[in-house]
Amino acid sequence: MEVITKINEMRAKVLSVKDRKKSIGFVPTMGAIHDGHISLMRSARSENDELIVSIFLNPTQFDKGEDFDNYPRQLNQDIELIRKENVDVIFSPGTEEMYPDGYCTNVRQDRITDALCGRVRPGHFNGVTTIVTKLFNIIKPDRAYFGQKDYQQSAVIERLVRDLNMDIDIQVCPTVREEDGLALSSRNKRLNLEERQNALSIYGSLLKARSMFASNIRDAKEIIEEMASVIKKTNHTKIDYISIVNARTLEDLSLINEKALAAVAVWIGNTRLIDNTILE
Amino acid sequence: MEVITKINEMRAKVLSVKDRKKSIGFVPTMGAIHDGHISLMRSARSENDELIVSIFLNPTQFDKGEDFDNYPRQLNQDIELIRKENVDVIFSPGTEEMYPDGYCTNVRQDRITDALCGRVRPGHFNGVTTIVTKLFNIIKPDRAYFGQKDYQQSAVIERLVRDLNMDIDIQVCPTVREEDGLALSSRNKRLNLEERQNALSIYGSLLKARSMFASNIRDAKEIIEEMASVIKKTNHTKIDYISIVNARTLEDLSLINEKALAAVAVWIGNTRLIDNTILE
Repeated sequence: MEVITKINEMRAKVLSVKDRKKSIGFVPTMGAIHDGHISLMRSARSENDELIVSIFLNPTQFDKGEDFDNYPRQLNQDIELIRKENVDVIFSPGTEEMYPDGYCTNVRQDRITDALCGRVRPGHFNGVTTIVTKLFNIIKPDRAYFGQKDYQQSAVIERLVRDLNMDIDIQVCPTVREEDGLALSSRNKRLNLEERQNALSIYGSLLKARSMFASNIRDAKEIIEEMASVIKKTNHTKIDYISIVNARTLEDLSLINEKALAAVAVWIGNTRLIDNTILE
Repeated sequence: MEVITKINEMRAKVLSVKDRKKSIGFVPTMGAIHDGHISLMRSARSENDELIVSIFLNPTQFDKGEDFDNYPRQLNQDIELIRKENVDVIFSPGTEEMYPDGYCTNVRQDRITDALCGRVRPGHFNGVTTIVTKLFNIIKPDRAYFGQKDYQQSAVIERLVRDLNMDIDIQVCPTVREEDGLALSSRNKRLNLEERQNALSIYGSLLKARSMFASNIRDAKEIIEEMASVIKKTNHTKIDYISIVNARTLEDLSLINEKALAAVAVWIGNTRLIDNTILE
């Protein structure tokens, strides 16, 4: 496994792979690797000749006052975890390599980024679409892998690829959960024991939504209220949003008459966690 | 020569060229082909195996109230002009093909787009960077060709390619002029005989700048005033801007102590024309 930190070296590597007519699978990460990332790597490994994983903690997708400074950093440990997955290349550039002096270009979306997390994290998705465009241009993957846990991110990137005519297949893989249902997230590392327990209310609220939907309840407000009450019953939680939206456009639904997404963002102490489930 | 209007067909064509390991030269145009475009095609023809020219009158790079509706349209005539240049493919998609329902992604720059034309045409360069990104992703050229007449556009695109890590060589070719010095532009077609004569004052102002610079005058304000007086002497002209800027950053210079650009935008009757010259 190679670890490459320079764009020019990464380009040369990609060129040599393309010359051999090999397909490239790509898993972009911000490090703090967990089993969710690993499952993306395994999907990518089974579907491509060459597997490239990036580790880049992208400052531009954190708004001011967000947790960029406290985001878990563990590069050496990450490299060892990734090595076990038969990955060919880790691309791990520095911030100056990706955003050199004079940098001034951004990729932005409207509408789809106004919903859910976009509403409470205004600059976040511009940071995501910009860094993903850059990484796609460097790595030139045939397929790129994202987790359903960050559902809106996947939707934004599918839209990005379609709108900018990138020739890349976006694969969205199922959310990986702990045995008790908590969705894996790099931010889980920051929970203490009590918070870890409280965080289960997030999954609980999604189970509530699923069971109400299975009982043919289609009124979004009614479901959202029940989801909220699950979370409010738990100490030290603060709801950032609970939304039921069209799964494609992410626009709020009042009546669930098409494929829908129930999505939740909750503060557990000082840590903001998100999760979601499809209702269809 | 093929004329392709669908993105998928264009992609398939590009794929087959890449499979044969041929290089692709690309000249993007908005149609209304003139000898300036032809000179770009000839440069591209001599430096690449395959030559693709696009014709797409991009609505998003015209601000409200600008001349999108009156921009010259002459597709059949353009095709015949391009055919003579031994071009392999014309890519001429419709507006719906490039911006389908639900389209919501834009590529933007700050700083470099604030100067010169960006200051008076606020949405213009966002439209340019977005459509050029899309065309580059579809055509996947090795080299793309732009004219120095649209100096800021070339600078913006060079910055775009660098910032988003596109692996494309941007070639900026010299401005082509009529015998009397008027820079070729699709908008020249709209000038009547008197306006055509008055438009010469633009080139006159650039010659004035060059001669003052050659006489070791380095004070930008002094040169700009003399340039303005050349244009003001001519009837029915209105100066949009006259600027002397750093040729790389496009930031205003007061003292010309590095490679500079003297750039002019002037209304000749109802037609806005631009031109520029390097001072070094």
